[in-house]
Amino acid sequence: MNHIDLLARLAIENDTRIVLLVLDGVGDIRSADQPMTALDRAELPNMDALARGSALGRTVPVATGVTPGSGPGHLSLFGYDPTDPEADIGRGVLEALGLGLKMGRADLAARGNFATMDADGNLTDRRAGRIPTSECQRLVDSLQADLSSFEEANVEIVAGEEHRFVLILRGGGYSADVADTDPQKIGVPPLAPQPRTPEAEPTAELLAKIIARMNGVIANEPRANTVLLRGVAQLPHLPQFPDLYKLRAGAFAGYPLYRGVAGACGMEVVPCGKYFHEIVPTVRENWSRFDFFFLHVKQADKAGEDGNLKAKIEVLEQVDAALPELLALEPTVLAITGDHSTPAPLAAHSWHPVPLLVHSPVCFVDDCQEFTEAVATLGHLGTLPASELMGLLLANAGRLAKFGA
Amino acid sequence: MNHIDLLARLAIENDTRIVLLVLDGVGDIRSADQPMTALDRAELPNMDALARGSALGRTVPVATGVTPGSGPGHLSLFGYDPTDPEADIGRGVLEALGLGLKMGRADLAARGNFATMDADGNLTDRRAGRIPTSECQRLVDSLQADLSSFEEANVEIVAGEEHRFVLILRGGGYSADVADTDPQKIGVPPLAPQPRTPEAEPTAELLAKIIARMNGVIANEPRANTVLLRGVAQLPHLPQFPDLYKLRAGAFAGYPLYRGVAGACGMEVVPCGKYFHEIVPTVRENWSRFDFFFLHVKQADKAGEDGNLKAKIEVLEQVDAALPELLALEPTVLAITGDHSTPAPLAAHSWHPVPLLVHSPVCFVDDCQEFTEAVATLGHLGTLPASELMGLLLANAGRLAKFGA
Repeated sequence: MNHIDLLARLAIENDTRIVLLVLDGVGDIRSADQPMTALDRAELPNMDALARGSALGRTVPVATGVTPGSGPGHLSLFGYDPTDPEADIGRGVLEALGLGLKMGRADLAARGNFATMDADGNLTDRRAGRIPTSECQRLVDSLQADLSSFEEANVEIVAGEEHRFVLILRGGGYSADVADTDPQKIGVPPLAPQPRTPEAEPTAELLAKIIARMNGVIANEPRANTVLLRGVAQLPHLPQFPDLYKLRAGAFAGYPLYRGVAGACGMEVVPCGKYFHEIVPTVRENWSRFDFFFLHVKQADKAGEDGNLKAKIEVLEQVDAALPELLALEPTVLAITGDHSTPAPLAAHSWHPVPLLVHSPVCFVDDCQEFTEAVATLGHLGTLPASELMGLLLANAGRLAKFGA
Repeated sequence: MNHIDLLARLAIENDTRIVLLVLDGVGDIRSADQPMTALDRAELPNMDALARGSALGRTVPVATGVTPGSGPGHLSLFGYDPTDPEADIGRGVLEALGLGLKMGRADLAARGNFATMDADGNLTDRRAGRIPTSECQRLVDSLQADLSSFEEANVEIVAGEEHRFVLILRGGGYSADVADTDPQKIGVPPLAPQPRTPEAEPTAELLAKIIARMNGVIANEPRANTVLLRGVAQLPHLPQFPDLYKLRAGAFAGYPLYRGVAGACGMEVVPCGKYFHEIVPTVRENWSRFDFFFLHVKQADKAGEDGNLKAKIEVLEQVDAALPELLALEPTVLAITGDHSTPAPLAAHSWHPVPLLVHSPVCFVDDCQEFTEAVATLGHLGTLPASELMGLLLANAGRLAKFGA
């Protein structure tokens, strides 16, 4: 039996609280040029004190040697197999959920860009000069007003940042097998929405009509005079956290993609700030509403991607400073790990195992004295697939029934 | 998705060089009678220096507790699942590839022995008194000359060592489901080639005609007056290294079986000597021709099989002495491990995990100070299935694209 199916079979409810703190890209490497990692060098008195009463180990994000993107990395942490085609979350859905929109099983979502085309209908700027978000909102309001009289479908348009928006078709009977209209280059016209299967023809035709209508509304705009659609998608068939693990789950993430993945897994996306010290108070305010709290700290990954070890150290020290506030909530289980490593020498995501800390009254207090890659290698939890972490968290929370008599 | 399928999907080309040095049977055990292993006792200054700048760990050859033969042990290291029936490489194919012969998908190969039978047609020696290789070559030349006029099939016969030869049928329409003609005992006649399925009947009949014709040619030989065929086989459907991993792969192995396995995986078998100090110069000569270099050192296994710890130590010290020559080539990634352990106290292959060293600029320099079984247990790479090693090597070479956005 798959691990996730076994967990679903054994999951039970109780009054515990589980916190999963994802320090995006936290893992790093020791190399000839960088003999110590950010975790080695950072001053983390609170994290180290926590480590001394916890069990350490490591997670392997997707598979040995495989470097995950952020989507697959998080799906693994949430217990899914990101290599399963069923778990492929389309960009339109990620964007919609990331903006906090609710999506039903039958709804269709696409990412939209405002763009500029010339008098001949050829694109001159695929991002409409990155118009300000306020201008985007004004345009979206006009489009939404116009489309409210569109009778062939229930269309919802929501502004994102700068030139970005999300288009959602509510209702049913749609197919997501429609190609992008963004030609990915300028000097050519936008593409018509092409069906990739015969079943998708009606959806493609419908999208063509909607695009034509939108283009009519914004035809005289100086910059944003056309639209491009990408990543047409429907919700993947991921089992949802409340059904799967019997957890009321809240996602506290400052960035759209992570909110989107969490939303697709059945977590409620709670609006919150981008920094850990902003996120923790929001968690506190919602402490009674959830059993499971996914907290996402983006900045460690950003620093790693920039190859900036110093910045990564600072992020970790900032998290450490606010950690006591989180501990004051007295979660039954607190896990700290990353969705992947982002070693500064690589300035990119990597495949290296990610340090993991699990704190609970029954976690097994091992001999690890601090939270670093090297120390975690020797911890009691060993090195496990990230997709098995949920089993460990549920177990530590007493939320898994005994298997067999 | 299977690990190997995932790697195939993500593999990309670049200019790196990967060296996989297999010290056959290198792993050993500490026991009451043998408190230190060969790696513990050997003086390995170069290996230890390498270890101090590398990541260590362990490979599990096939599965926990399972002792592999040489074929499965190597298939695992090359990323395949040796328990998959599709990965079963017949002995005829191993022998043919081991002799450096090319085999097409439709070709059929069998191992042959010259043997002695008496006037009644009963076998008296299944190896024809182990005739010298030169005599084998003379006989094979006569047989090949005769069979060149055989019209029903394109037959190729190639001499091996002593009484051994390989028979290949070129072309198509054959079935490998034909039983051995070697009765595995003397005092009885050779068996007729029996089809194991109805589809194999034409092939069995064809082989019977070829055997009859061969027996006619050598009927008056004093010792080698008949032939026995074993291991009738066709190439297994293993995905090939160039397609699978986008690697031009060269095999540098002194013994036929290892050449055969490597050849079946799509590596080019490069003629070379049997000892590491002979192999390295051949690698150097071919450095520009390949991306991946499989180097095989047999003698550690031989010493283990003989229960000769002292000999095993000497083999390791010989390898260590020539290691700088290999390092001078500056491979991007160098991995050292074994296909299995061959503990001297067991005088046989075993299931024990095998120490692994991976050296690259991004490997994670862990705290391991030497290359031994006990130290490797604490390394950053952890303990992984041997079949996942290729993922690690490709990742360290930057040859795997990121999985997902």
